[in-house]
Amino acid sequence: MENILQLIQKDHFANYNQIQVIEVGEGIAKAQMTVTKNHLNGIGTVQGGALFTLADLAFAAASNSREKIAVALDANVNFIKAVSSGTLTATAWEIDLKRTIGIYRVEIRNEADELIATFQSTAYRKEPKI
Amino acid sequence: MENILQLIQKDHFANYNQIQVIEVGEGIAKAQMTVTKNHLNGIGTVQGGALFTLADLAFAAASNSREKIAVALDANVNFIKAVSSGTLTATAWEIDLKRTIGIYRVEIRNEADELIATFQSTAYRKEPKI
Amino acid sequence: MENILQLIQKDHFANYNQIQVIEVGEGIAKAQMTVTKNHLNGIGTVQGGALFTLADLAFAAASNSREKIAVALDANVNFIKAVSSGTLTATAWEIDLKRTIGIYRVEIRNEADELIATFQSTAYRKEPKI
Amino acid sequence: MENILQLIQKDHFANYNQIQVIEVGEGIAKAQMTVTKNHLNGIGTVQGGALFTLADLAFAAASNSREKIAVALDANVNFIKAVSSGTLTATAWEIDLKRTIGIYRVEIRNEADELIATFQSTAYRKEPKI
Repeated sequence: MENILQLIQKDHFANYNQIQVIEVGEGIAKAQMTVTKNHLNGIGTVQGGALFTLADLAFAAASNSREKIAVALDANVNFIKAVSSGTLTATAWEIDLKRTIGIYRVEIRNEADELIATFQSTAYRKEPKI
Repeated sequence: MENILQLIQKDHFANYNQIQVIEVGEGIAKAQMTVTKNHLNGIGTVQGGALFTLADLAFAAASNSREKIAVALDANVNFIKAVSSGTLTATAWEIDLKRTIGIYRVEIRNEADELIATFQSTAYRKEPKI
Repeated sequence: MENILQLIQKDHFANYNQIQVIEVGEGIAKAQMTVTKNHLNGIGTVQGGALFTLADLAFAAASNSREKIAVALDANVNFIKAVSSGTLTATAWEIDLKRTIGIYRVEIRNEADELIATFQSTAYRKEPKI
Repeated sequence: MENILQLIQKDHFANYNQIQVIEVGEGIAKAQMTVTKNHLNGIGTVQGGALFTLADLAFAAASNSREKIAVALDANVNFIKAVSSGTLTATAWEIDLKRTIGIYRVEIRNEADELIATFQSTAYRKEPKI
């Protein structure tokens, strides 16, 4: 598990955008982002791509917490509440795990525990090559 | 149209990640990203969030090319081919436009015109407030 | 609420396929289907369209339990476990409700409470015309 | 190919609802449905589940036109135009094909060639067992 999680922590795009994995267990993970100006779109709210990246990092940590390398085949995101500041937390959990396919659900919430976005992704699980 | 497009060009998250709108017309747009180390995940391919942001920027430009402000309600993305370098172009077009709802399709392709990802998003169209 | 729910109960496609609403409250609903040969695909498992219709009926009842008429803009479904017999129950709940948009989540489970499919749909809420 | 297509043609749910495959080639297929009262919802338009089933049948034929059995992992549908009568045609084509994963796009159009719904599905490809 450590080797694969090191890969997640070496995620350049997440690091560059100050998005971090803060917790990981078997099939579950949390990622966090404290909103700065760099996360905003032109109308002053957090850009959809920043929210997606936050959810995706939680998904990547949860899906790679197992014995295999997992990559996303697809993802669906619903943007529920626009936010402009504060710390956002994405919580990911496994809703299905088969030999080569896993399905993960992610919710992004703000500090007031309001739902900001939902995310669901199907992972393809490869044999470990490390 | 200029006012709204200025907003798209002031997108901090896209700018910070060096993703640009390169073309925009009525209901269509293109965005581009030249892959750098900052766009990669821990296994050396372009992070899903970077691809999503590229597609989302093309979507935002296309959907805001009309007379109303448009925001994404949801989006679906399929990751088709992993890439590690080169210039990626996202092309967005309108597949439906109603009074308050628009639907946009985006394809991301590399310089060899290979399909990297598909994206589809439903936009909610607000009355302009500018 | 009665008028709109009568419309749900007059759903010809659901009735023809023996799919029923069994419970409805504010923003929540359940629908049920007892699997017969007519629900199966060519390999003997419940057809994706039958599962979709079951989830969609629960969604329609939940989203139309409010003061406005609601229609689906889009829906995402994940098929998790193939089934061939028994009674399947779809449970729908509201995860967001705004003036013109509602988001609903549906889970389909079998009698052993195993997860068969997940469904999420964005509803457009019209002013009542009845 | 014949064996697998026989399975598609033995689809009980599609047959019961008078939805037929009318054309199939390598990675492509068409399905058709002439709207009757049994396809309608309570407000007199074609039920989302009927549209989904039409798109799904075209997808199933296209994805099973290859040497392996394919089952849907997930699907996204956008409902664009409500219809109440006429003949609807779903056209499916492959947008990606890998060893175990295929991605298919489907458009439903009416006789006036208007876009009624879009559908995209990820297929899991099993080794043939027949």
